[in-house]
Amino acid sequence: MIDQMGSNARNAARVLATLDPSTKNDVLAAMAVELESRSDQILAENAQDMEDARAQGISGALLDRLALNPDRVTAIANGLRKVANLPDPVGSVTGGWTLLNGIRLERVRVPLGVVAIIYEARPNVTADAAGLCFKSGNAAILRGSSYTLRSNNAIADALRAALHSHGLPQDSIQLVQDTSRQAATALMRAKGWVDLLVPRGGPGLIAAIEEQATVPFVIDGAGNCHVYVDASADLAMAADIAFNAKTHRPGVCNAAEKLVVHQDVAAEFLPVIAGRLEDFGVELRGDAAAMAILPNMIAATDEDWPTEYLDLIMAIKVVSSFEKAIDHIREYSSGHTEAIVTEDLGAADRFVRETDSAVVMVNASTRFTDGEEFGFGAEIGISTQKLHVRGPMGLEALTTEKYVLHGEGQIRS
Amino acid sequence: MIDQMGSNARNAARVLATLDPSTKNDVLAAMAVELESRSDQILAENAQDMEDARAQGISGALLDRLALNPDRVTAIANGLRKVANLPDPVGSVTGGWTLLNGIRLERVRVPLGVVAIIYEARPNVTADAAGLCFKSGNAAILRGSSYTLRSNNAIADALRAALHSHGLPQDSIQLVQDTSRQAATALMRAKGWVDLLVPRGGPGLIAAIEEQATVPFVIDGAGNCHVYVDASADLAMAADIAFNAKTHRPGVCNAAEKLVVHQDVAAEFLPVIAGRLEDFGVELRGDAAAMAILPNMIAATDEDWPTEYLDLIMAIKVVSSFEKAIDHIREYSSGHTEAIVTEDLGAADRFVRETDSAVVMVNASTRFTDGEEFGFGAEIGISTQKLHVRGPMGLEALTTEKYVLHGEGQIRS
Repeated sequence: MIDQMGSNARNAARVLATLDPSTKNDVLAAMAVELESRSDQILAENAQDMEDARAQGISGALLDRLALNPDRVTAIANGLRKVANLPDPVGSVTGGWTLLNGIRLERVRVPLGVVAIIYEARPNVTADAAGLCFKSGNAAILRGSSYTLRSNNAIADALRAALHSHGLPQDSIQLVQDTSRQAATALMRAKGWVDLLVPRGGPGLIAAIEEQATVPFVIDGAGNCHVYVDASADLAMAADIAFNAKTHRPGVCNAAEKLVVHQDVAAEFLPVIAGRLEDFGVELRGDAAAMAILPNMIAATDEDWPTEYLDLIMAIKVVSSFEKAIDHIREYSSGHTEAIVTEDLGAADRFVRETDSAVVMVNASTRFTDGEEFGFGAEIGISTQKLHVRGPMGLEALTTEKYVLHGEGQIRS
Repeated sequence: MIDQMGSNARNAARVLATLDPSTKNDVLAAMAVELESRSDQILAENAQDMEDARAQGISGALLDRLALNPDRVTAIANGLRKVANLPDPVGSVTGGWTLLNGIRLERVRVPLGVVAIIYEARPNVTADAAGLCFKSGNAAILRGSSYTLRSNNAIADALRAALHSHGLPQDSIQLVQDTSRQAATALMRAKGWVDLLVPRGGPGLIAAIEEQATVPFVIDGAGNCHVYVDASADLAMAADIAFNAKTHRPGVCNAAEKLVVHQDVAAEFLPVIAGRLEDFGVELRGDAAAMAILPNMIAATDEDWPTEYLDLIMAIKVVSSFEKAIDHIREYSSGHTEAIVTEDLGAADRFVRETDSAVVMVNASTRFTDGEEFGFGAEIGISTQKLHVRGPMGLEALTTEKYVLHGEGQIRS
């Protein structure tokens, strides 16, 4: 099954790699129209998915993410229009020079080829991921959840119809029909067929990929983000940043999970920020030094420091020096985002250099680690790995580079 | 063992990441002096390695690669001086802009952290790899061959002495003392300790890494390189390029293994190039159409087309069209280097776009796919993968990027 899909995708990718930007944008616009014109049909399929999901005991937020309505279908279509408006990464010349012998060298951005996405029960991801892959010239193999198979098929059919009406291979976008775990594993191990696997899911999926994948992948990992309040911090700014980083959207990876405070300002700062956080319903957990100032907190344990809560919980550590703050962050960070609040130039510079994370903020909320905020227009995820792409991933993350050398018969002597 | 080395390397890497370029260059120069001053000792250890290797039946080219002499020690030292003269990739600002809210964003090149190298019985690689890792601010874990353990230790001791005399952690460069296969596997699976693994070895090592590694790696894969002679080619140029690509250094990955010829020029071209190649001792193998022109060749089999010979062998395929040439190359290429010889602008453009390899040459020998030729100064290898780095790898391949954002208290609303 995967071999056939891989072969189909490889053939389609060859066509996609040579499309000019305006053709791709026209097709994305046509996909949007096709989705909107099939709205009733998509909603009917989604209603059946919802019925089955309810019968299987799915409820609450999970069920809500699964649900479509006319507005949501329009939003999905508009998402494709937005992708059409992004700059095309393919063909961008990222460097070039002339070799000593006169050969002209250029480094050019090109599609990866075949991109596979494994994702959870969110039908909008079917169109989002397909649109980003198509815009970057890649064939997409999409593997969604069994809970949304009908909705995903209805959406994929609309996208494929737009491809077909433009004379492009429909297998540019393929949806895996087998939603078993074995089929997901087969996709992770489809070496030679898949040039990049992007997981959009929880820790279980990511662990499975890290353990089993033989295809190249980019991990959108955990965000155990720290806010460090330096001895020289503007404490009002520090309170605003810490509060925003924790409470603005606690369930996402760029939310702060840990507050590290220099002991020189802890006695003044902690009561202020603790009051604000607790008023918002944040549960605070402290180390011994923090507890000495705020005795009503829960005592933090060794398990707290490496944990991404994704919840209204924050652990507080008081450090005796700037160096101890860096040590703590280096030891427990997941490499996503760290912020320092400081008025001290030297401390800011050292923090930037000595923390080892994808994004380092000076006097700004960790919440700004985001593809939209960075200006990428669309975000494929936030990479916490160091190879290929680090931090928020835009369309460029779905491309590679090729060296093109033009000579006039040069040979090596 | 690997955990201890990994932890030592991680601590050393923290120091290396903050060194300025001139300090690193001074240390590299000191390493070179230290190597030269210990030449006798290094040669004595190497003599013992050689004796043991001979006793184990090693001979010929393998034994020669193992051997050191005073000139080779000087060359190794000069290699380090050359690395000192390369531009420092660390700290290079690769992009930057201001977010809508005024936050200033910079993307900065930083070291990966800990780089592991697994290599064959060539003691010079100990210093080469250590020097490149050090220059790029990375701690190195080196795992060489049992045949060269004494030589490698003598070289590593010299490098570590130079680190020590400059007050830097000696564990910036560590040599794995256990040369068993299990220890190599442990290094491949040292997730969390190793940020990048670079193999410098044959297909067996690469297959083992692809199958077993859990740490990120970059593969320096096979080069089944093609030279395509188009219908419009300047045939004298084509003969020079094909001859050079095959014979200049047949045992390396950028040597051409296959000659693909358009049928319109085959009858004129093949006798000329075949004569030159056979005079040089190249064994030619042909498909049916090539055999019709040169009946004395060996018939090529299905096994020939995907094979990297690394030897004085070349297989010849005659194609009925430009498209068939692309099809053949896409099917059998290892993604390393392809060359077209043509005077036709449209054919050149299509070849560049439609072949899917790290490097595409127009009217130049495949032998130019080389870090030195590209002007990188030093080459870590030639990546045939698409993620992180593709084609010849310079020092930049040993770095990653970090986003640094400077605000004045911005929070998300």
